[in-house]
Amino acid sequence: MSSLERFWAVIPAGGAGTRLWPLSRASSPKFLHDLTGAGRSLLQATMDRLEPLVGERVIVVTGQAHEAAVREQLPGLPATQLLAEPSPRDSMAAIGLAAALLESRDPDAILGSFAADHVIGEPEAFRECVRAAVEVADQGYLVTIGIEPTHPATGFGYIRMGESIEGGLARAVEQFVEKPDSARAAEYLQSGQFRWNAGMFVVRARVLLDLLATWHPELAAGLRAIAADPSSLPEVWPGLEKIAIDHAVAEPAADAGRVAVVPGSFAWDDIGDFHSLAALLPAGGDGVRVLGDERLVEAVDTTGVVVPAAGRTVAVVGLEDVVVVDTGDALLVTTRQRAQDVKGIVDTLKATDRTHLT
Amino acid sequence: MSSLERFWAVIPAGGAGTRLWPLSRASSPKFLHDLTGAGRSLLQATMDRLEPLVGERVIVVTGQAHEAAVREQLPGLPATQLLAEPSPRDSMAAIGLAAALLESRDPDAILGSFAADHVIGEPEAFRECVRAAVEVADQGYLVTIGIEPTHPATGFGYIRMGESIEGGLARAVEQFVEKPDSARAAEYLQSGQFRWNAGMFVVRARVLLDLLATWHPELAAGLRAIAADPSSLPEVWPGLEKIAIDHAVAEPAADAGRVAVVPGSFAWDDIGDFHSLAALLPAGGDGVRVLGDERLVEAVDTTGVVVPAAGRTVAVVGLEDVVVVDTGDALLVTTRQRAQDVKGIVDTLKATDRTHLT
Repeated sequence: MSSLERFWAVIPAGGAGTRLWPLSRASSPKFLHDLTGAGRSLLQATMDRLEPLVGERVIVVTGQAHEAAVREQLPGLPATQLLAEPSPRDSMAAIGLAAALLESRDPDAILGSFAADHVIGEPEAFRECVRAAVEVADQGYLVTIGIEPTHPATGFGYIRMGESIEGGLARAVEQFVEKPDSARAAEYLQSGQFRWNAGMFVVRARVLLDLLATWHPELAAGLRAIAADPSSLPEVWPGLEKIAIDHAVAEPAADAGRVAVVPGSFAWDDIGDFHSLAALLPAGGDGVRVLGDERLVEAVDTTGVVVPAAGRTVAVVGLEDVVVVDTGDALLVTTRQRAQDVKGIVDTLKATDRTHLT
Repeated sequence: MSSLERFWAVIPAGGAGTRLWPLSRASSPKFLHDLTGAGRSLLQATMDRLEPLVGERVIVVTGQAHEAAVREQLPGLPATQLLAEPSPRDSMAAIGLAAALLESRDPDAILGSFAADHVIGEPEAFRECVRAAVEVADQGYLVTIGIEPTHPATGFGYIRMGESIEGGLARAVEQFVEKPDSARAAEYLQSGQFRWNAGMFVVRARVLLDLLATWHPELAAGLRAIAADPSSLPEVWPGLEKIAIDHAVAEPAADAGRVAVVPGSFAWDDIGDFHSLAALLPAGGDGVRVLGDERLVEAVDTTGVVVPAAGRTVAVVGLEDVVVVDTGDALLVTTRQRAQDVKGIVDTLKATDRTHLT
């Protein structure tokens, strides 16, 4: 079988999207929402984008609280390919569980992990990168897809690229770098040697677990134990180490020369906040961007984004780069510049006995 | 009987308060709302303010659409003292109808007209002015109360004061002046010879109707006909001239030397828009002014005014002089600077088949 025929997509569907409150809630997180006005939730769009590559070879990993919602949004997904975590144990456990199950069925399986809540502008360019990544992964590398930066973003981690691997498109990853300040981000952009880390990893299931076993042997063993006896999940899961795949495997593997990057130049965004969301929406005739029913919004001399999710008429007059998010039980008004500070509101609500609003 | 014992308060309760949309609606206008957080509607506060002067000698004139709401807010008002207009015919007909009814009961009755939707900061100082005005009115003058300007307002008409009348507090009115531009308003303020026209008139009922008969004889005759036979109201009312009391009587009477002004230095506002409303509310600890339940508002680095009238949580981050008015079926977001432009939104809604929202 070709490498692509052994390739499975793993979609971790988690994360609260706190900075997109009050649209995104713990009970109804970002990936369940249509944040682009495309008529499909981010999760559905992620499936749509991968389907030409993997057909039905998809595993979705989500929290038990969202299992029913995911099932409703993805009615074609076989029940055995929807994994529900009893509790959140971060991305390594989520992706590692899928990897262990795939490994137990096919020792040569390759997986690619793609978050359920990202947006990609040119899906065919994305798939071309994934195809290239699958080939490199089949050679034993942990392969990431590095997005070409379009601006000196301070909200993303970066990947420093090294030499080309065997003269191909892929290059060695010298280092994963934390979110930089804006001066450093500008340097990264200018050097041409950096890519955004979109958290996409393509790797043989066995390689991923073996790498994990090197640095976190108990976690790797726990995941493989669940794969060997799925009925042990409720018992084993709570004891698993809570760690992100980047820290658990990607960073140490990069130091060990085991990570490759396939550069991608397609448009990508993780819609981390309403500033990003606004940039993805087309500006209306009156200058304001609307996510939802444009007929509900009366905007005069206003730029920014309005989300009339409560179905009420929203009138906005004379505000620049404003963010108005109207939902049934909560309303947010801020600016694109302050979009990151929405998290603080959620923290305050939690700290003042209003967790039901978060 | 002393002049004060013959004195009645007439409260025209009308006006849509378009610039206070979506709080004020045609179906639920400004005077029915508590806009100061005092726990009383503007109409109720107007009654409270006049009660020490007139006791139960009060007539409220409102539209038939609001008769029930007024009755509910003023349960103590005798049914015969609530006049319901079959259709809006402007302030001269409204006040003139009350004047004609009072004249028919007592030829020496004095009335004072006080809008139901104004706010007065020092009620005892206000009442002192009214008492003085009643005495001057008893001598046959049309007396207005002129508010001492505190800033060069462009949203109010002004009164140019002339000589003192018989050495007393009252002065002749030389002229009523339309809303000025800001340069002229500054001149007015500096001269010390101008007062704001708050539309308060104190006058003998007979004098008012006789003055009206001079310039608008048919209107005066129509009103007196209704007073003589109240059952003729539905028939006579629709034919009455639609005109404001200022144009019908006050301006020509001033030219004829028949108008006096009693200067008042109490705080007064007609709450014409959300800019004015914000100025009347105390600033909260976090800088934002809240009309309603403060526990619903989370404000960070924000000044301005928030009205959480829908009962939902409202979070506002990083906006200066913002206006957020949240109601069940409509939301307004603007700035205090643009508060006058709210009218344009109401016009747009009416022009686009959304009159139900106005």
